[in-house]
Amino acid sequence: MTETGNQRRRIKLVLEYDGTDFAGFQIQGKGERTVQGILEAALASIAGHDVTVVVAGRTDSGVHARGQVAHVDLMGRIPTERIAGALNSRLPADLSVRSASEVDPSFHARFSAKQRTYVYLIWNAPYRSAVWGRFTTWEGKPLDIGAMREAAGLLIGSRDFGAFANAGGDPGSTTVRDVRRVDVRLIGSGPIVAIRVTANGFLRSMVRNLAGVLISVGRRDTTVARVAQIIATGNREQNPCATAPAQGLCLMRVEY
Amino acid sequence: MTETGNQRRRIKLVLEYDGTDFAGFQIQGKGERTVQGILEAALASIAGHDVTVVVAGRTDSGVHARGQVAHVDLMGRIPTERIAGALNSRLPADLSVRSASEVDPSFHARFSAKQRTYVYLIWNAPYRSAVWGRFTTWEGKPLDIGAMREAAGLLIGSRDFGAFANAGGDPGSTTVRDVRRVDVRLIGSGPIVAIRVTANGFLRSMVRNLAGVLISVGRRDTTVARVAQIIATGNREQNPCATAPAQGLCLMRVEY
Repeated sequence: MTETGNQRRRIKLVLEYDGTDFAGFQIQGKGERTVQGILEAALASIAGHDVTVVVAGRTDSGVHARGQVAHVDLMGRIPTERIAGALNSRLPADLSVRSASEVDPSFHARFSAKQRTYVYLIWNAPYRSAVWGRFTTWEGKPLDIGAMREAAGLLIGSRDFGAFANAGGDPGSTTVRDVRRVDVRLIGSGPIVAIRVTANGFLRSMVRNLAGVLISVGRRDTTVARVAQIIATGNREQNPCATAPAQGLCLMRVEY
Repeated sequence: MTETGNQRRRIKLVLEYDGTDFAGFQIQGKGERTVQGILEAALASIAGHDVTVVVAGRTDSGVHARGQVAHVDLMGRIPTERIAGALNSRLPADLSVRSASEVDPSFHARFSAKQRTYVYLIWNAPYRSAVWGRFTTWEGKPLDIGAMREAAGLLIGSRDFGAFANAGGDPGSTTVRDVRRVDVRLIGSGPIVAIRVTANGFLRSMVRNLAGVLISVGRRDTTVARVAQIIATGNREQNPCATAPAQGLCLMRVEY
């Protein structure tokens, strides 16, 4: 056990949440149930002072996380190895801390991140799933996985993803991102189709827009050739595909 | 499309439900939210008459199903191929119909069943899971999978499972069941451990008692030799292991 004096420590937290009943990550208006709001209250309770959570990526309402990362600065004498347990005993069932570790004060959950991986899950069967409904989007039409994979190949690389960015991001900032991996596969023998995307960073609702285009290709509503044209426009208004619903999306991992 | 007159049809339903917010399958006192109660109301709404649901296995409060089977007798003109869709549009998000098919009037969801398969999921990690919490039981101590597999081997065969039957079953009836498969494996690379059990039938809370013994072996609280002794007693009161919690259990399949 580490003896800890009352100096400031920077702590890296790895978080898991079921986004269904949260109004997203970030604290918003009064009365909204957010991950940040609940986590900051639990942190204040164990630290004895106000704590501000800095997060790798603010997830939208309904989006889940298996490996969200945040950092906080804590005073107080609680040993670092007891932080995760102390928080988990105070947090509700749909929010948990996978780990808490001390990091260098220069570590920043958002700015130090090298790449992020999201997965988008589609329940591809004629009936909706009562068990998987919270974590998947239902698509009743059989998806053409081969065509989705072909389109996925077009999305890899460092390029302008403006056609996949919903309004509301930082105006005037670059819409170039480096997408390092997009794969489409069946979980087990189906009927869940998983789209996994790794990039250095993401624009607003970018993964849901990538998933929306790939689902449209899988449904044969959009051709692979059309996807190349959509990318080339660099403009969300020139992309006719719907943004895929939030509940299929999960932030899996942030790497530093 | 099948043209259907107003004669009686026996319909086999395959059901999926997230048991978290249900007080079990079977209708109980007033005001309890049960799978049967909600399903019978939806059936009455599409059939225009009262419908009684006969189920393969009554699951306890909190237990989930991916492949529960029931039969119902319907009058009315709704085509068989439209039943599943009509029910799903009336059922809540945590209950769905995978399929509805016409079967011979001699088919009986409970008595015609040849074997049933359940899976019991354990979240085996130092932290509880916010995403998997609804569908797993949390065990923080690393489980000895090898020892669990060895003990699982002792449970296979046609034998007296009285040591795994909670009180409340049919008094005086046999406690012999034919367990055809018990396997213990990691889902993906962990940390979920899945215990899958197939038998011709199950005693009351039998899978949760089998899981309770295997978890105890995995924790090294109970030896494999002791499991053989527990089986031999044929008496639940001689089995010191706790019944594993309901939320880890899911009825996967009923075969006819």
